[in-house]
Amino acid sequence: MLKDKNEQRTSISKLGEFGLIKHLTKYFAINNESTIKGVGDDAAVLGFNDKKTLVTTDLLIEGVHFDLSYMPLKHLGYKAVMVNLSDVYAMNGNATQITVSIAISNRFSLEAIEELYAGIQLACNTYNIDLIGGDTTSSRTGMMISITAIGEIEQNKIVYRNGAKPNDLLVVTGDLGAAYLGLQVLEREKQVFEANPNAQPDLEMYTYLVERQLKPEARKDIVELLEKLTVKPTAMIDISDGLSSEILHITSQSEVGCNLYEDKIPLDPQMISTCEEFNVDATTVALSGGEDYELLFTISQSDFDKIKGNPNLTVIGHITDKSEGVNLITRGNQKVEIIAQGWNPLQE
Amino acid sequence: MLKDKNEQRTSISKLGEFGLIKHLTKYFAINNESTIKGVGDDAAVLGFNDKKTLVTTDLLIEGVHFDLSYMPLKHLGYKAVMVNLSDVYAMNGNATQITVSIAISNRFSLEAIEELYAGIQLACNTYNIDLIGGDTTSSRTGMMISITAIGEIEQNKIVYRNGAKPNDLLVVTGDLGAAYLGLQVLEREKQVFEANPNAQPDLEMYTYLVERQLKPEARKDIVELLEKLTVKPTAMIDISDGLSSEILHITSQSEVGCNLYEDKIPLDPQMISTCEEFNVDATTVALSGGEDYELLFTISQSDFDKIKGNPNLTVIGHITDKSEGVNLITRGNQKVEIIAQGWNPLQE
Repeated sequence: MLKDKNEQRTSISKLGEFGLIKHLTKYFAINNESTIKGVGDDAAVLGFNDKKTLVTTDLLIEGVHFDLSYMPLKHLGYKAVMVNLSDVYAMNGNATQITVSIAISNRFSLEAIEELYAGIQLACNTYNIDLIGGDTTSSRTGMMISITAIGEIEQNKIVYRNGAKPNDLLVVTGDLGAAYLGLQVLEREKQVFEANPNAQPDLEMYTYLVERQLKPEARKDIVELLEKLTVKPTAMIDISDGLSSEILHITSQSEVGCNLYEDKIPLDPQMISTCEEFNVDATTVALSGGEDYELLFTISQSDFDKIKGNPNLTVIGHITDKSEGVNLITRGNQKVEIIAQGWNPLQE
Repeated sequence: MLKDKNEQRTSISKLGEFGLIKHLTKYFAINNESTIKGVGDDAAVLGFNDKKTLVTTDLLIEGVHFDLSYMPLKHLGYKAVMVNLSDVYAMNGNATQITVSIAISNRFSLEAIEELYAGIQLACNTYNIDLIGGDTTSSRTGMMISITAIGEIEQNKIVYRNGAKPNDLLVVTGDLGAAYLGLQVLEREKQVFEANPNAQPDLEMYTYLVERQLKPEARKDIVELLEKLTVKPTAMIDISDGLSSEILHITSQSEVGCNLYEDKIPLDPQMISTCEEFNVDATTVALSGGEDYELLFTISQSDFDKIKGNPNLTVIGHITDKSEGVNLITRGNQKVEIIAQGWNPLQE
């Protein structure tokens, strides 16, 4: 919202497509042994030996998934990578490579695209990911980013969504709902700014929420932690559309039921106080908010001692027989059926 | 251009995102042994054993890469897959899986997206490809398609762009320039139709050109043919941006020069006659037209006898020392330096 009007602006057409790709990717190093050939040929070449390959992809559209009036391009690049890595970690895998395709209208300068790639590069460096290819093209309006992430995993370590069994414990990482509230805070500030362009945004009270929205981290650390604790989840998914939606994916694919306890859902104090300020129910936000990129998984009860007391992991419920349904057990000890209310981009 | 006004129209929002994905992918079978888990989890799981994995991706934007006023959606789906498979074949590999991400505005009905997927499915069936994942989202305007193709190859069979050596022969498959001319024909018919909506397009004289534009085939058959002939190219690339641009990729990455003979470039008779009609130079169209999706490769002279007389393969030049430059030898025996004039989406 606070934009430097004097920023440098180089037209992209000067470079041409291949020049642009070369320019943007030249400082991306190759660090994974499995990357045999990255950017620069018809296809990248990967070698995974005895391991299995994981592939996942996400498409982000300006005006649908992000708003550049409060999402800095560097953060956007970082987040676009996180969204994809999160899916690889949700398989219990190790993310190793990405391809990045972007479409941009002529309102974006070279400097703007460099910012985007700076965020992509920071994500690659932090998570040890090799950029191996992509496509760069023009769009008629706005920006689109399509990323495909590739990972590796040993066959016996793969965790699908469909392995949850009755009596398994339901575990979530981190805390929930903050990313959604961060978006609400940013949307409100945008409206204030549009009404009065001299207003200075005061986000100090919301730093955690805004960071969760603008710079989420995929939970690679959890995959490593579970390995260290010798815990293999029976089912796992990442929380992109909201807790309720993800629970329903696990229970429907595993053909089980679930009891989720409202009072166990981990919430950050800033999230709770901001829910009060916005007059929204914190549980509803945690259930339906989305974009947390935490991991939700089920473990056998016999593994409980291994995770007990770990500050990253919270047991929020347990798996039941399918016939018992999927329920939220409220603070008042009422049983309420969980219905998907996750963010649905096709029903705006 | 001739649209049935009474076509059925089902709103996509009725299905929701997961309903839509399920609906669109339910008739896609899994045929490749390397596909362990396809659509339906956080990531797909692939297993390639001792082979190397190939990855390539392309992004197609409405109004930039395709015009739905003359590109039927089924053809668009088919072509979007071909564009990606072509890159895998250009590595001498076997394409095995794709992910498909689409963004669509609310002007598209379910029936329209089904048409798109019918084309994708036809491509998958014809080329033995498994659809293993993707993303489906809304766009503010128009349609975008992002496809990532994955393939497999034995290490010793990989053909990069950088292996051409002086005295190698330069070989091209099929014929060139027809896809570009097909586009010109369709653009002209669109203008006629816009001026007079009752005009019936007469494309009979241009069937080959239009088919090359609307329904290109990736040259999987050539990879199989080369295997059968026991010819391993020293360098290979697919022709998406035009012959001159691709020759320059091979020569610059291989650090060699090249002499290309104008009179050897394979042209279809319909292409030649239509060039006359449009008053454009056939050689220029072949050099700069693009979208042919033929393969361009170099082979050792000692392999010449193996390919001699094959109607699919035409020797169009030979590799020289870098110092000799990259030249077109004209029919009049003049030497003209080749400069890239390939289609550049960032310089419209």
